[in-house]
Amino acid sequence: MANFDTDFNNFYMHMALAEARLAYLEGEVPVGCVIVNHLTNTVISSAHNMSQQGNNPNLHAEMIAIDMACKKINNKTLLNCDIYITLEPCTMCASAISNARIARMYYAASDEKQGAVENGVRFYTTNSCFYRPEIYSGIQRLESETIIASFFSKLRKNKL
Amino acid sequence: MANFDTDFNNFYMHMALAEARLAYLEGEVPVGCVIVNHLTNTVISSAHNMSQQGNNPNLHAEMIAIDMACKKINNKTLLNCDIYITLEPCTMCASAISNARIARMYYAASDEKQGAVENGVRFYTTNSCFYRPEIYSGIQRLESETIIASFFSKLRKNKL
Repeated sequence: MANFDTDFNNFYMHMALAEARLAYLEGEVPVGCVIVNHLTNTVISSAHNMSQQGNNPNLHAEMIAIDMACKKINNKTLLNCDIYITLEPCTMCASAISNARIARMYYAASDEKQGAVENGVRFYTTNSCFYRPEIYSGIQRLESETIIASFFSKLRKNKL
Repeated sequence: MANFDTDFNNFYMHMALAEARLAYLEGEVPVGCVIVNHLTNTVISSAHNMSQQGNNPNLHAEMIAIDMACKKINNKTLLNCDIYITLEPCTMCASAISNARIARMYYAASDEKQGAVENGVRFYTTNSCFYRPEIYSGIQRLESETIIASFFSKLRKNKL
């Protein structure tokens, strides 16, 4: 029997992976993100990393998706909203996700170098963190890792 | 004899404090920020906290100023740029300042609760931090502390 919750989680993570693939095609580090209202199962926003084309290091997928979601629902707290991300968020994004009061965070691959959840500053375990979402990792991990590995492999080849 | 560098630092911090006062008048937590090209002594951007009126928790003074500066110089790295902030940056902003490769950070007051430089995650001392600006704190500290204390005192009175 299918697990209803898991099916939804897979569905939204597939959407986030589609965003990551768009980023890949645009020459961006392939990270995608989707914000969903889990009461209505409505996608509130969907974005991918745009730092290169936007000439702005703040334009990570999560930051854009939070900006869009706040505009859409005209509220600075994203209550009842979950975030699906293809990569463990960095320090900036982990803090932004906390500030936005997002209920649950799902991410696919871990990021040993820049991640801030299970790696790095482990932001949600610190005293500076005043709100911690529920955290689930590893959904579609391999798919995300493959896209990222492919991107960096292409990047290295082009530089040789 | 006047110290040329210190005079400039005071001048830009006064600009940042003027932004903080604007935030105060707009009912925002009074934090202001100025980004300056230190080779040309040109103000690149100037902003204050707009989280409440923008309905967006990402709209800290530093994030807005970095966005504006990147747009203005059409570059995602703010080389030769310094940032003047009236309060120790939070985790999100400390990480964003590192990502933008800002040369020097000057801040006025410390923030024991949400700061991420000398408090909290002390981001620039961690292995997740791949670029660390030069850091100077305490310029116009009392002025900034007075504005912030006044804001929170007013907030408490209005809530009673």
